[in-house]
Amino acid sequence: MTRPLTHTDTTDVRYAARASYDRDVAYAILDEAPLAHVGFESGGRPVVIPMLHARLDDRLYLHGSPATRLMRTTKPGVPVCVTVTLLDGLVLARSAMNHSANYRSVVMFGETSPVTSIVERRTVLDAYTDKILPGRRSHLRPMTDKEVRATAMISIPIEEASVKMRTGGPVDDDDDYRLPIWAGVLPTPTGYREPLPDPRNHPGLEVPEHVQALVR
Amino acid sequence: MTRPLTHTDTTDVRYAARASYDRDVAYAILDEAPLAHVGFESGGRPVVIPMLHARLDDRLYLHGSPATRLMRTTKPGVPVCVTVTLLDGLVLARSAMNHSANYRSVVMFGETSPVTSIVERRTVLDAYTDKILPGRRSHLRPMTDKEVRATAMISIPIEEASVKMRTGGPVDDDDDYRLPIWAGVLPTPTGYREPLPDPRNHPGLEVPEHVQALVR
Repeated sequence: MTRPLTHTDTTDVRYAARASYDRDVAYAILDEAPLAHVGFESGGRPVVIPMLHARLDDRLYLHGSPATRLMRTTKPGVPVCVTVTLLDGLVLARSAMNHSANYRSVVMFGETSPVTSIVERRTVLDAYTDKILPGRRSHLRPMTDKEVRATAMISIPIEEASVKMRTGGPVDDDDDYRLPIWAGVLPTPTGYREPLPDPRNHPGLEVPEHVQALVR
Repeated sequence: MTRPLTHTDTTDVRYAARASYDRDVAYAILDEAPLAHVGFESGGRPVVIPMLHARLDDRLYLHGSPATRLMRTTKPGVPVCVTVTLLDGLVLARSAMNHSANYRSVVMFGETSPVTSIVERRTVLDAYTDKILPGRRSHLRPMTDKEVRATAMISIPIEEASVKMRTGGPVDDDDDYRLPIWAGVLPTPTGYREPLPDPRNHPGLEVPEHVQALVR
């Protein structure tokens, strides 16, 4: 059994039924969504920056140019909030009030640690490619040490986090069900559209299997 | 000519070419993406919460149950950072290092004002429906005063904000172009999938035109 996530008591009463502190549920959401929104304090005010992330075991990793704002403020122990949200659909009800969205989100709190080891950084960078583009890494030349050194990286332990989600169809007021209004869910799309090849690809180079597999 | 957005000098040198302070560019991104990530301080640390938003003129509006965390802390003048990100595609290069993402994001800073007027709140709630689901509002019964009163709402002036974006194909190191590796862009999907009707819809109710229009 995996350890549950910890959390402080900030859950809304209204949405309590949608909350979870199950580590496996949180990890499934983190692994499905490459985009994270990272919040931290900078210059005395909150800042939220979109970043790609990768999870390895019980840590979440963020990387970027050493010039980026979060990487610049990266002394150890910077408090951050990392939020990952999957919008699964729009929920169309019979009244405007009961319109909603289906979503799954993880909100996690932690303090950053710089990843200084070149070996660890390389492992994590390889994991990024494997998570976002499974099967691609073996098609690429290995990263050079210079490239790994040029990439700033921080990690955050996944300990204090909560999942919130909404699934299912609309829930209307009793009286509204007699209205002849179409209600239902508009699901958001998944996967990717047809790949656009780079004009500088070698002639005759076909879209490889690992890319085609990502197109729905 | 629209007034440009203001900004403090926190732009990364590396990404300067991708930045914009054009109000029209920012508004197009805000209007396309219903999901915002809202950062604020709570209990001495940063918190980032996903919320739906709507822009009206030069203000951004957020609403929710009065029980939600941000609405609870809503005395006037709470500093927030609202970030909206559209992930447009994954950029597959010939080296792991040059992999990237195409995206458009707005990062805006401001202080919250509670929207106390019931009239203003109703106007904004109608605008939410119009933005996210164009054409739907006229199909619904009007919101009751009780419903409008039960909805907490804050607004933030859109003044200090910046746009960042990346578009186009991969940019590889000169030497890597001789490698026979497929490179290109995997575009993310747009629109919605086929609507799922609520089992309690009246028999024979067809998917209305305003819903079908959102399906790609």
